[in-house]
Amino acid sequence: MIGSVRPQVDGGRYAAKATVGRDVVVRADVFVDGHDRVGAMLRWQADGESWRDVPMEPLGNDRWGASFMPERPGLHRFKVTGWVDAFATWHSELVRRLAAGEDLAVELQVGATLVASAAKRASGQDRTRLKEWAARLADAAPDEQAELATAEGLTALMARWPDRARNAATSGGSPIWVDRERAASSAWYELFPRSASPVPGRHGTLHDVAALVPSLAELGFDVLYLPPIHPIGRTARKGPNNAPISSADDVGSPWAIGSEDGGHTVVHPDLGTVDDVELLVEELGTHGMELALDVAFQCSPDHPWVSEHPDWFRHRPDGSIRYAENPPKRYEDVYPLNFETDDWRSLWDALLGVVTFWMGRGVRIFRVDNPHTKPFAFWEWLIDKVRAIDPGVLFLSEAFTRPRVMEHLAKIGFTQSYTYFAWRTDPEALRDYLTELTTAPLVDYLRPSLWPNTPDILTEELQRGGAAAFRARFLLAATLGANYGIYGPAFEHVEHEPREAGSEEYLHSEKYEVRWRDLTSAAGMRELIRRVNATRHAHPALQQDASLTFHRTDNPMILAYSKRDARSGDVVLVVVGMDHRYPQSGWTDLEMPALGLAWESPFTVVDDLDGSTYTWRGPRNFVRLDPTHAPGHLFHIEPPGLAGATA
Amino acid sequence: MIGSVRPQVDGGRYAAKATVGRDVVVRADVFVDGHDRVGAMLRWQADGESWRDVPMEPLGNDRWGASFMPERPGLHRFKVTGWVDAFATWHSELVRRLAAGEDLAVELQVGATLVASAAKRASGQDRTRLKEWAARLADAAPDEQAELATAEGLTALMARWPDRARNAATSGGSPIWVDRERAASSAWYELFPRSASPVPGRHGTLHDVAALVPSLAELGFDVLYLPPIHPIGRTARKGPNNAPISSADDVGSPWAIGSEDGGHTVVHPDLGTVDDVELLVEELGTHGMELALDVAFQCSPDHPWVSEHPDWFRHRPDGSIRYAENPPKRYEDVYPLNFETDDWRSLWDALLGVVTFWMGRGVRIFRVDNPHTKPFAFWEWLIDKVRAIDPGVLFLSEAFTRPRVMEHLAKIGFTQSYTYFAWRTDPEALRDYLTELTTAPLVDYLRPSLWPNTPDILTEELQRGGAAAFRARFLLAATLGANYGIYGPAFEHVEHEPREAGSEEYLHSEKYEVRWRDLTSAAGMRELIRRVNATRHAHPALQQDASLTFHRTDNPMILAYSKRDARSGDVVLVVVGMDHRYPQSGWTDLEMPALGLAWESPFTVVDDLDGSTYTWRGPRNFVRLDPTHAPGHLFHIEPPGLAGATA
Repeated sequence: MIGSVRPQVDGGRYAAKATVGRDVVVRADVFVDGHDRVGAMLRWQADGESWRDVPMEPLGNDRWGASFMPERPGLHRFKVTGWVDAFATWHSELVRRLAAGEDLAVELQVGATLVASAAKRASGQDRTRLKEWAARLADAAPDEQAELATAEGLTALMARWPDRARNAATSGGSPIWVDRERAASSAWYELFPRSASPVPGRHGTLHDVAALVPSLAELGFDVLYLPPIHPIGRTARKGPNNAPISSADDVGSPWAIGSEDGGHTVVHPDLGTVDDVELLVEELGTHGMELALDVAFQCSPDHPWVSEHPDWFRHRPDGSIRYAENPPKRYEDVYPLNFETDDWRSLWDALLGVVTFWMGRGVRIFRVDNPHTKPFAFWEWLIDKVRAIDPGVLFLSEAFTRPRVMEHLAKIGFTQSYTYFAWRTDPEALRDYLTELTTAPLVDYLRPSLWPNTPDILTEELQRGGAAAFRARFLLAATLGANYGIYGPAFEHVEHEPREAGSEEYLHSEKYEVRWRDLTSAAGMRELIRRVNATRHAHPALQQDASLTFHRTDNPMILAYSKRDARSGDVVLVVVGMDHRYPQSGWTDLEMPALGLAWESPFTVVDDLDGSTYTWRGPRNFVRLDPTHAPGHLFHIEPPGLAGATA
Repeated sequence: MIGSVRPQVDGGRYAAKATVGRDVVVRADVFVDGHDRVGAMLRWQADGESWRDVPMEPLGNDRWGASFMPERPGLHRFKVTGWVDAFATWHSELVRRLAAGEDLAVELQVGATLVASAAKRASGQDRTRLKEWAARLADAAPDEQAELATAEGLTALMARWPDRARNAATSGGSPIWVDRERAASSAWYELFPRSASPVPGRHGTLHDVAALVPSLAELGFDVLYLPPIHPIGRTARKGPNNAPISSADDVGSPWAIGSEDGGHTVVHPDLGTVDDVELLVEELGTHGMELALDVAFQCSPDHPWVSEHPDWFRHRPDGSIRYAENPPKRYEDVYPLNFETDDWRSLWDALLGVVTFWMGRGVRIFRVDNPHTKPFAFWEWLIDKVRAIDPGVLFLSEAFTRPRVMEHLAKIGFTQSYTYFAWRTDPEALRDYLTELTTAPLVDYLRPSLWPNTPDILTEELQRGGAAAFRARFLLAATLGANYGIYGPAFEHVEHEPREAGSEEYLHSEKYEVRWRDLTSAAGMRELIRRVNATRHAHPALQQDASLTFHRTDNPMILAYSKRDARSGDVVLVVVGMDHRYPQSGWTDLEMPALGLAWESPFTVVDDLDGSTYTWRGPRNFVRLDPTHAPGHLFHIEPPGLAGATA
């Protein structure tokens, strides 16, 4: 029997996620009735290629494990095969009979038959050697029995030619979607290109954005994400602070997409041209970065599709098109698309065309706006189509909605997912939430992206906590999450004033206005960002989430956690102060094995935030965190032998 | 979308278990993309009957629930159907629009369309009334809008005629095997009939067993289980204490089945006849009890099948039949059957014939000896065949083997399963193990049977702990497990001497000898048994396992737990001393809601073991347990209002 196969999503109905060049760790229960020994094999394939076999190892209690490393992005499958291993069964009994002093003559003849049939399966030299062994077992003299029963050469030889015929069972093929490396680890920076001008009063352009790239690369970001860059509608355009009425100077919301200048495949004339997007992609590429564009499938009333395809929208009984609303909130500048229109094939094709248009300009990452308000079936279809063209295209799901819906979007294909991280401010709630995100079943298919802020989310904690809160949330996001991002300009400048009390909207939100900022004033935050991102790039431990382990401390306002890269043994240990006002001190209670250390081992921790070094020993170590000085410690661990060299 | 359906075993591949007359509680995630409201229906059927519908209720976070109560044993199925509820969506938005002071004229027209289509689905009076509502909504005067928007009559009417067409999804049909009541709750008593004679020196008979029935019924047992009652082989018969050589007087092991007198469908001549089995079944029936026979599918060398069907056994290269062994242990008096013989169809049919033979004599419960040493496929086939004849036949799996194998036997159909209970003596280990047994996934398909002892298992704790240990283990087994059993005569007489140090075998085990006991010496233990079984019968809380809740205490040697029957609210709270030598005292920390009580509520606990009554208040209450006096408290709880009446 084969059961409890991992990784598997809903019994293999959806693909689990994996990454090129990283181990896919497979586990399964493999067992039979009775006392027979079993053997087990992991079989895997890249789509359309042949199956490859990896022998599985017993882990105890009928659990077996093996791993494989996919070499390219795309769909893969694996199965687990188990069978009764007659030779191993016979051999383990033989060894016990020998110990009990039994005569083995008859049993060695049983073994001879097993070896003779293995010889028939074998080829080359092995075949000849197995035939010789069969003959020796059949004709063993009494004084040879002990030697033959324990001969290791035979066991190794037989293991190469297993008889998989008896009681064989195979699990159903489990799909695994393999992404390129950036899917698993990325630091995102979001900015509004119209605010990118170095000259106050001038509308920013994509050229201005390109000029910022070297500094973003120097900060260590991997992805630059731009809100929609398309023409913005005039009809019902919103004014500053989401005012229902706008003046001729107001720029409107970039999410009110489409004007007489065009729709989703056109660049806003004030920002530049489609060619400028290609140039930006190129500039980012020379700095090891990528561009992420916003996919917001909705239209302003002035979008060309409104007149060309009125049937792509919902109408009210009075004939008017339904604007977006979530009563009593109204978004008169936005018409949702009707994905269930009779003409849905043309609509869906047009939307796919938007994505492939930008793919043609070199864009391979898309941040999808509110995917949960569109049909699951649409996204499953679209992502499949896109991946057939380029399996390296990544989609970030911006679904701040109910957990089951967020999870389902990840199941049907979204590469990364926004999370509730921003609102998990209580230390215990944060620990519980991150534990849920980084353990089964979620860890098998949902890659969390942690954002301390977005243009829609200025949390109460950031409003009240000052720069110390910003620093702590940054350290948490960038080290708890292999994938994270910030709405950068507002974050670096510690912008914390809400539109009104009780609101999470920014005052003078960039969603409705162009903003200019003095970049030099962000120096302090930038230095922290630079150091943390440098540590992320230097330490594979921070480039994955599955190993996240929380450690106890005796002060609830001190959060300690570590990550460990299984292959290299690299470890990062983070200690964060959750009080943004007063210093906190306390003692750690480290789970030493999670750090790859013996329980009472001495070790050296080096803080990458300020270069300080401490010599610790065993689980209990004193820490003191002053939020006015630093958000916490970002330690890498040096093994005991290197302690002297570092000090 | 529908997901995480419970109860479901391996995604519906195996049947979950349920009981006639008890609620099957179904849960599922039901959700759609977007903000639409959904509706959900539980659909269930007894095999071959039509589907019945139960509306599901939202439990929060997209989880929905409903339950159904099967009325007869046999295979049942259920599904969960979800759909977008356009009316509920429209209505919830309408209420918010009303609160925001919007004009509702256009929206009421949208509603009119929805109501008009419901009228088409409806019949009778409802149809007329829905038509009237549609007309009123379509022509609503401005001053009627508010009244129409909040009319509860319309909501109730629409709920009766849901439109299940939009975005409907249905889970796969999940199988549920429904057993009769005894499968869910039973107290077993095992005895060797050959030791049942009231006259020392005389071989006991089935008539002697029948004479014991009234006293067993008085003790409150539900099932009398007899080890094999068939003729015993002579060849290689074991002597006392499993000696390899026996004398002519030795009776041999009842598990060495078959002699020249016959095999599995014959009664040992010294015990009586097949007719006596029928009489015993009858006598038990008049006392509300049942007979369980042992199914041990193996043969002594003298079994008629050995000569009639030599190909049903395994042979060694020297032509001899393989006896049972687990090297270096040998069971020369037993030949295992070869279930994989070429003639397996005849063999399997013959074994099915054994079960149906005894079913024909009125036996409906079978305790299956070592099922894990026979093929899973055989048991799945046999149990299916038997259930087709009588879905009320129950099978207890005696598989003390690896967890995955024990679980799989339960999945493929065994009604109840022996467990590791006997060896879980550490309080924390016992709590963890029982928690695992009584929560998902196990609770959905494996019914644990807790045995403090068996003829094969005299644990070290019982060997050393004296009568106090026997009392404590009895109280634990009978209250932690809705199903439990004892190897009764040895248990009542506190027999605790092992064959040798380090062994779990009884000295002078009844497996190889006839034993006579002075029944009057068991009075003390019998009184405890009688009281506990009486409480089990009086309190539905003890007749199920799923509600088992452990409560903290401040003394690790005091174990506290409760069970609660959801339908009646009946609660039993048990406090057991885990130190069998010295008194232990401490404070409880009761999880009051699990008892159906408010956190600081006063309540009265009545100890059914000695009739004492205590008035308690809130979670913290003092207990003192003296093992020389009683194993613990077996409390039922009386609500605050009754406190005075009881004292």
